[in-house]
Amino acid sequence: MGIEMPVPAKPEGVDAEVWEQMLHATPAEARHLIREGKFAAPTSGLCPGYAQANLIILPREQAYDFLLFAQRNPKPCPILEVTEVGERMTHICAKDCDVATDFPGYRIYKDGVMVDEVDDVVDYWRDDLVAFIIGCSFSFESELIEAGIEMRHNTQGRNVSMYLTNLACEPAGSMSGNTVVSMRPIPYDQVVKAVQISGAIPKVHGAPVHIGDPSVIGIKDIAKPDFGDPVDINPGEVPVFWACGVTPQSIVMNSKPPFAITHAPGYMLITDTKNVDLKG
Amino acid sequence: MGIEMPVPAKPEGVDAEVWEQMLHATPAEARHLIREGKFAAPTSGLCPGYAQANLIILPREQAYDFLLFAQRNPKPCPILEVTEVGERMTHICAKDCDVATDFPGYRIYKDGVMVDEVDDVVDYWRDDLVAFIIGCSFSFESELIEAGIEMRHNTQGRNVSMYLTNLACEPAGSMSGNTVVSMRPIPYDQVVKAVQISGAIPKVHGAPVHIGDPSVIGIKDIAKPDFGDPVDINPGEVPVFWACGVTPQSIVMNSKPPFAITHAPGYMLITDTKNVDLKG
Repeated sequence: MGIEMPVPAKPEGVDAEVWEQMLHATPAEARHLIREGKFAAPTSGLCPGYAQANLIILPREQAYDFLLFAQRNPKPCPILEVTEVGERMTHICAKDCDVATDFPGYRIYKDGVMVDEVDDVVDYWRDDLVAFIIGCSFSFESELIEAGIEMRHNTQGRNVSMYLTNLACEPAGSMSGNTVVSMRPIPYDQVVKAVQISGAIPKVHGAPVHIGDPSVIGIKDIAKPDFGDPVDINPGEVPVFWACGVTPQSIVMNSKPPFAITHAPGYMLITDTKNVDLKG
Repeated sequence: MGIEMPVPAKPEGVDAEVWEQMLHATPAEARHLIREGKFAAPTSGLCPGYAQANLIILPREQAYDFLLFAQRNPKPCPILEVTEVGERMTHICAKDCDVATDFPGYRIYKDGVMVDEVDDVVDYWRDDLVAFIIGCSFSFESELIEAGIEMRHNTQGRNVSMYLTNLACEPAGSMSGNTVVSMRPIPYDQVVKAVQISGAIPKVHGAPVHIGDPSVIGIKDIAKPDFGDPVDINPGEVPVFWACGVTPQSIVMNSKPPFAITHAPGYMLITDTKNVDLKG
């Protein structure tokens, strides 16, 4: 394995034996454990070196607008794969990968309102659905950790903190709304390194969108994230904000398509794609 | 203007006074000369530093498939802008820019067959059309020239040589076909530099797709390009091939959508977007 990585803390509620299996799983093995319903928790820190991914599933009717939205907003919505209409299996980012079962958690939206949270969406599947698999900042965390930068949510066994901002996305057809960001507290003397390392992988959100004062991007209380868990920010650390693949959920809440499925924030797909293959 | 650039040779058939105007025009002024019908020739070498662009216009009915095709094939089809349905004016890559008049030449396709070549498409415009503005390798030529690399087609006053290859694109829905490439002869000792300079701007096709033996990518006779003009390849030079925004024309010919409009190969849109803003 080469470099020794610090082990992330076990998230609350996860069976110790399953956690041990997840820590040593290949991406395919991790997806199978998730598919079998054994793991339903945040995936940060798992399968280091492999890209993790966000999800939004929409009917074909809304798919063009969303694809164009993603093209116009590549920072929050870097697309790794778009499935064929009605097709649950991915072909590009992973093999033997079912978008209806292989995320540890899903949210169902009707007319922009969340109506259900479920472990799989087999019962919600329809022949007209298209899945958009979107890059996730969990992907570059392993490189930040290798560079000696602590991922506080990992060491605290929590989900990353995510916030709705006042940064408007470029609208496309029926799709509009504001950017969601993930936040990591970084010591001042590691901020530049964090920018450069993450900036090298635009397909998983790339460089931060904001560094420092949360109020500048419309975040009122850093201790109260809109998604995920709060994490400690220690003296000498600055909050650094990356565009987040939960942005499509803010778009769904704002644009109110009749039907949408997303992943649960922090509960990501672990793909077969290596981060290194997404560089450049 | 800083660095002195070599002046490209006047293409055949262009009025000397108009050519002089084009050589000193801003992108907006160049578009106006083209819109007024005064310039209908290849645009390579004009407005150095500004991105030039390819065009494909499709009915909304086929737009999702093409947008997905471009997402899956970013090397030949890096999208700079997609216009709103029925809208002729661009909003992102240029201001005061009409996609129906501001390219120096257009081709009309019905069921995959070219049926007309025209200077503007005002009479062909329909309310259901979507224009895809796609990056062009003419954009990075000014940086290659600055680096001391001759653009043979410029110095010969010819259109760049373009070839249909055997490199299959990743299909998407109804869209499939092979990659078209542009070719520039480069002295051996400048090939690496050419790769690095062009590779820094993926939005205008980025690094080459092939260097050397044309037969490896299915080109039978380098002296007979499928689009554009032949150019001289001197001893000590190697043909270098870049993915080309004429690829959508090969897709149209292969996939046979009922209606499509493209630019005439080499007759590009000159945008207001600086190459430097497309980097990274």
